[in-house]
Parts: sequence; structure tokens; C-alpha cells
Amino acid sequence: MQPNQHPIVALATPAGIGAIGVIRISGDGALSLVDGIFKGKRLAEQAGHTAHFGTILDGDIAIDEVLATVFRSPRSYTGQDTVEISCHGSPYILQRVIELLVAHGAQPAKAGEFTLRAFLNGKLDLAQAEAVADLIAAENEAMRRVALQQMRHGFSEQLADLREQLLQFAALIELELDFSTEDVEFADRRQLQALVERLQAVLLPMIQSFRWGNVLKNGVATVIAGRPNAGKSTLLNVLLNDNRAIVSDIPGTTRDTIEEILYIDGIAFRLIDTAGIRQSTDAIERIGVARTLEKIAKATLLVYVFDVTQMSLSEVESDLGQWQRDGMTTIVVANKMDCLAINAYDHFSRHFPLSYLPISAQTRSGIAPLRQALLQAAGSNSIAPDSTLITNIRHYEALQKAHTALNQVLGGMQQGKSSELLAFDLRVALDYLGQITGKSIDSEEVLGAIFSRFCIGK
Amino acid sequence: MQPNQHPIVALATPAGIGAIGVIRISGDGALSLVDGIFKGKRLAEQAGHTAHFGTILDGDIAIDEVLATVFRSPRSYTGQDTVEISCHGSPYILQRVIELLVAHGAQPAKAGEFTLRAFLNGKLDLAQAEAVADLIAAENEAMRRVALQQMRHGFSEQLADLREQLLQFAALIELELDFSTEDVEFADRRQLQALVERLQAVLLPMIQSFRWGNVLKNGVATVIAGRPNAGKSTLLNVLLNDNRAIVSDIPGTTRDTIEEILYIDGIAFRLIDTAGIRQSTDAIERIGVARTLEKIAKATLLVYVFDVTQMSLSEVESDLGQWQRDGMTTIVVANKMDCLAINAYDHFSRHFPLSYLPISAQTRSGIAPLRQALLQAAGSNSIAPDSTLITNIRHYEALQKAHTALNQVLGGMQQGKSSELLAFDLRVALDYLGQITGKSIDSEEVLGAIFSRFCIGK
Repeated sequence: MQPNQHPIVALATPAGIGAIGVIRISGDGALSLVDGIFKGKRLAEQAGHTAHFGTILDGDIAIDEVLATVFRSPRSYTGQDTVEISCHGSPYILQRVIELLVAHGAQPAKAGEFTLRAFLNGKLDLAQAEAVADLIAAENEAMRRVALQQMRHGFSEQLADLREQLLQFAALIELELDFSTEDVEFADRRQLQALVERLQAVLLPMIQSFRWGNVLKNGVATVIAGRPNAGKSTLLNVLLNDNRAIVSDIPGTTRDTIEEILYIDGIAFRLIDTAGIRQSTDAIERIGVARTLEKIAKATLLVYVFDVTQMSLSEVESDLGQWQRDGMTTIVVANKMDCLAINAYDHFSRHFPLSYLPISAQTRSGIAPLRQALLQAAGSNSIAPDSTLITNIRHYEALQKAHTALNQVLGGMQQGKSSELLAFDLRVALDYLGQITGKSIDSEEVLGAIFSRFCIGK
Repeated sequence: MQPNQHPIVALATPAGIGAIGVIRISGDGALSLVDGIFKGKRLAEQAGHTAHFGTILDGDIAIDEVLATVFRSPRSYTGQDTVEISCHGSPYILQRVIELLVAHGAQPAKAGEFTLRAFLNGKLDLAQAEAVADLIAAENEAMRRVALQQMRHGFSEQLADLREQLLQFAALIELELDFSTEDVEFADRRQLQALVERLQAVLLPMIQSFRWGNVLKNGVATVIAGRPNAGKSTLLNVLLNDNRAIVSDIPGTTRDTIEEILYIDGIAFRLIDTAGIRQSTDAIERIGVARTLEKIAKATLLVYVFDVTQMSLSEVESDLGQWQRDGMTTIVVANKMDCLAINAYDHFSRHFPLSYLPISAQTRSGIAPLRQALLQAAGSNSIAPDSTLITNIRHYEALQKAHTALNQVLGGMQQGKSSELLAFDLRVALDYLGQITGKSIDSEEVLGAIFSRFCIGK
């Protein structure tokens, strides 16, 4: 049998006890393999996308009553004949059925092997396949949205089309090499330049989107700072309580115990509380403080909260000087506006810059603008809602390298470089573009590395 | 809408991240309810047992690409229209889709509510429904086998048939009450007696099987005793290593950390190690020892191991006197047979009773007979492989009470009791028999208590 054609089997649902558990088996002969242990209709004779009740048998022993759903090549996830067996959700029974399928010739699937086959059979390109893993790992709305968008349409269609055009130019230029003594130019240099510039115009926003894509995937590291009694905790509670509902009760959501995570429109703000920093007295606490300071150094957003009834502008600016650093966006929040006199906003606007956000955590006024400011600081406004977002560091690096190689091509043309050198740079660019969609990856090792981050069963 | 008809929804697969997660929705209008958020073919127009690819939409926002499998009443688990939605296995996405279905009118299912509906719609009787929960909780081969047997055929068919016959007699006897002045006997007393005796002959082995059924479900509490250096640990390792493979790597299998569990043919022997008992020196250790002694008092099997090269029969018997107690079966193991002289078995049979098992844990000889002895002691030989086993304490108690009431009927007939008294005892017996199959349970409270031990989603 061809490689990647033999039937593979794995549990597709999470481990543990549930009402049902689903075992997936896919590959050449998967249907008749299951028929060997399935008492019911012959699955190999059933139409695709149909479900059949039956009994899993080990010899004479009935193991479980199950529902087997048949998918026929190419209309299946992998593109191969597939059966999904829905068993009673006892880990023991599921293990028993998997062992039985293995005894009948199926191989235990490696991590990501089903999706690898979907890729190899052209059901998904590589970037789409990688989005499947992101979708499964999605912990919030933004991660889900980006991953689904990438899995469904991907940016790779667009790239693949432009790459195709570039490939034709590369072929023409390589043809010139065969006629190098004749000094001909098959490839129209102006058309090539226009195409490369078009491609660059596509690549650049993708590359730039990585910062935001990364924010969506990994959250925004946010430092909350302020003097004692500035109302930081009240503010935090107000922000957290407004947002905690949806995500907090989902099992499997991992979170760093030190940090609070605030979700706004599905964007995770990983809040690093700075309250403890001044109180470092003994050795063990100092280690904790050192760790917090490390995190603060990596943070990209500073939310500074002050008590508007107690602080002057110069005091605020002095504090900010202590916290701010390069690459950090700052939001300054003037809290306790409700404690000011009747003309509170008058007072505020006379003493503080308009860029400061007047709020009252106590009365919950000014919270909506603060949420907007946080979203804006995270970069959500800089990207159109449906634009392509790069979230995968592998894609990001390949895009950067393709971009660099295309710059070489443009520079080379301006300097009137030889066809040979142009052809080389084009090859490099084509190669990096192809790595994103999987077109120029044929090493099993590289594919193995990409798919090994999947869970088994996918 | 009738009670128990509205669409209910729950996650059917375990919580956690997996390749897929399945959401089940069942009830009147379930198909069109899902159609409200499903972009693809209209599910309400599709045939039962067919699977359809589509997109879950929240307004304009695509939430996930899913596979929806349609089941039409009455050919579904609950007997009602049902959709199983197979989503990408992100807990966030699954939660999102469930919330969406709830927003569209589905109610979150209570524990066991799908199976409760299957029972109410006559898809399963109560004993079968309870077996579903046992099947899902099955941790080993024996539990699986008993639960599946009970779910598929149950003992309740047999009971229901006999109960039906008994009911006819009861009706005839109650008819006699209406004609009590005329002193007629509509119900043939000899036929009634034969029927009751037939019923008793069915009930008694069921009642007796509970001990063994309980062993299958909860394992055999087994004390391992022996002097230091008797080779207990070596023996344990030999037994455990031969059997550990299948079950130990299944996540979700719960086990008491203090005990080792030895599986033989799917029967769990919960081994209580007695090594620590003599070494009780400090207060905390003494608590541990007290707990072990408590467990030993509840154990039903004693495996006593001695070094055949060191011990005399009288020493062994003295040790046994210390350990043995009422209701405990004892297996005596003569270890280190390989260390005896050339005529080892000669020596053994001259000095020890033939009921002792000569083994060598070191060379692994005699292990197979020991395993057989353990199985036999657990009671596996006393029950025919396909016989009915009672594993549920609720059934056990109802059967006992029915049996007692039928004894009253028999005794009453012998004493020539009045039709009125006979009718009363028959009613009691009918009632208890009906409780097993669910025939005479109509209190929501009782059903609620039974189904609440299910997991949500089943």
C-alpha cells in the first residue's frame, strides 16, 4: 500500500468519561476493516454521509452498541474512506474498540495524521491545516474567528495565485539562461516589476498584521500600575465582572494563576498586577517581584490609574516616567471622578490632558470608553475586520523572507542584474511563498514537525 | 408543549480539547431549531441517519464548520427528533454553539435527561436505562460485559413477562373480592402457586447473583498477607505486570491511591497490602494502620503467602488464625518452590495440604493456577457466563422485597388466607417487580433520583 493510505485509527473526542466517545478510522479499506468487527449493515456497501446502528464484536463477544457514520472518498475530512464510530463514552470501551481495530489491521494515528492526510490529498493547504489546530485550541472569540477565517478561506489562495504568476516569470527568466549567448529577454521586465510590486503590496500588510494576529492568539501583556488607593482593584473588578461570564466556566481553558485575564470583545488582556512590587521585604517575595518586573519589561500596554482628587499632573507624569518604556502604549486613567465637586469635568479638563480618561470605577462611568481605549491600544482599529491576519510565526517568517527576496529582485532589476541572479532571487521568493501553502515542502521531516503540534485524533 | 418534549441540548463528549466535540439536541422541533443557526441543507427536510456538512452561524458570524447528523423520531436514542452536531473540539467553540442553541430556544439538558426521555418513550426500560450509566462508567471488561448485557436484553424482559402473568391472577383475585359474598374462586390456586414458584425460581438466582455482580462492579477487596521476605512483592509484581497493560494507560480510570488494583479477566482485585501493619510506631502511622485494618475487616478474600523453605505447617496455620475471619475466602500460597531441593513437589506434598498453591514468583511457575484460584474465589465459576447478574442495589432490594411478598402469597395460600389478603401481597410483589422495569414508577422524584447519577449529555 502507498504511504499515507493505510487505515489509521484514533479517539477523536477528548479523553475521559462522557455520554459518547467518537473513534475515527480513515484510509484505504477503512470501511471493510470496520465491517470485520461491526454487526449491522455492511458499511462498505453504504452511501457516504449515512449513519448506521450496530454492534462492535470481538469474535462472539459484543463490545458495545454503536453508531457508525460512513464517509466515502473524496467527501471526507481526510479525502479518504472514513468511518466515525460513536461508542458509549467509557474510556475502557473506547480503548477496547481501538485495540480491536488495531488488531484488525489499523495503525494508531500519530498526532495530526488525519489533517496531514487532508493536506496531502488537497483538501486543505498547509496554512489551512495549521488553522485547524488553532481552531481546536481557540480559547476565546478572537482566536476562534481568526482561525476559522484562515481555515475556510485562508490567505493562501490569494498568495497561491500571485505565486503562480511569479512562477511563470521565473520560468521565462530561466528560459533566458538557456539562450544566454543570444541576449534575449523573454520576460517583460516592466510586467515583472509590476507583479512583484503587487505581491509586495499584499505581503506587507500580512507581515504587519502579525503583531495584531499575535495579540489575538496570545493576548496583550498589560501592566496595571498606580499608587495605593487609586481604585485599581475596584476598576479591575468592574472590568472583569463585565466580561468574565462567558469564558470562565469552560473546562480546559488554561490560564496563568499569577495573571488575571480580561477579555474585551474576545481579546485577552493579560493583566500584570503591580501592587506587590513596593512591598518586597523578604527574599522569597523578592523573587516574585523580579519575575513580575521581567513580565513588565515584556508588556506592551501600560494602564496607569490615579486618584483624580489626590494627584497633580506633575505627580502623574513623574509616576509615568517610572513605568513607561519603549514599545509600550500607555493609557492614563483618572479615577474617582465621582468624588470631585459638582463641576468635575471642568476641573478635570483644566488640570489634565484630554488624552487622559476620566472614569469612576465606583459608579461605573467612563468604563465603556476605557474598554474602547484598551481595544484600540491592542491594535484592533488598525486592521479591517475581515482582513488577513497572520498568527503563525512560521508563516510570519516565511513572508518576511519572501518579502526580502522580492526586494532583491526589484533592486536587481534596477541595477540591471543578470537573468541568472534574478532567477535565483525569484526562486528564493517562490520557495518561501510555497512554504506557507505547503507547495514547496516535500520533506517529511518538516511536515512531521508542523503536524506534531496537533492533538492525536485530528 | 408537553413536558419532556421541548428540545434539550448538551455536550455529549467529555469536556476538554479534542479533535471533535459532539453536541446533542433532542426534542420536538429540534431539527428546525438547529436549522435556525445552520447554513447548509435544511436539516428538517433531510432523511434520518444522514450527516450534513455546514456552518454554524450567529447572525452573520460563522462560528464553526460542523457536521450535523439527523435522527428522526422514533429512530433515535431518545425516540425524539435529534441532531448531533460534530464541531471542532475547542471547549470555547462548543460552549459558544451550546449558548447559541439555548438562545434559539433549547434548554440545557439535566443529568441523564436524554436517557430519561429514551425511557419515557419506551426505547429502554428502567433497568436498561440504568445499565447505560453503568456502561459509560465501565472501567474493566467484566463491568462492560454485564452492563452491555443488561442494556441490550436486560433481565427485565423476562421479569416483565412473568409480572404480566401475575398481574392477570391479581386481577382475577381482585374480581373475587367483588363477588365476595358468593365464595367463588376465579383464580385457579394451583396455577397461581405454580406461577409464583416459577417466578421465585427466577428471582432467587438473580438475588444471589448480586454478590458476584457487585464483585464485577466494585472489585474484590483482597488482603495480601505474609511474613517479611515471603516474596509478596515479587509475586505482586508478577501478577500486576501480566495484567497491567490494558487498563493502566486509560485516562479517567479512577483508583484508590493506597490500593493496587489487579485485573484478572476483567475482574478487579483491590489489593490491600498489609506490609505496613507491624511497623506502626508513631501517631500518624497508626492512623494509617487503623484505616488498613478497617479495610481488612471488610475484605472478602485473603491471599496468604509464605516462604516454603522457611515455614512449617503449624507456623502457617498460626499466621492464618491471626488473619482469617468469617465471610473471608482464603488462598494459601507456598512461594519459593524453586529454592527447594530437587524433589520440591514431593517435599511440598509431604508437608502441606494439597489445597495450598505451590508457586515460584521468581521463576513465574504456578502463576496461572493462582490466577484461576483468585477468579474462583471471586465467584466467577459459580455463575454461568450468560446468566443474569444483578449489579444495581436498587434492583437487588426490589427483588428481595418482591421475593418476600411472593413468599407471603405462597404461605397465605397454604394457610387458606382470604382473597383480600392474597390480593394485597400480590399487589406488593407486582409493585416491587414493576419498580425494576419502571412500570410502577411514575413519581418524577424517584425518576429524578435515578437519572441524576448520569452524566450530563447522556
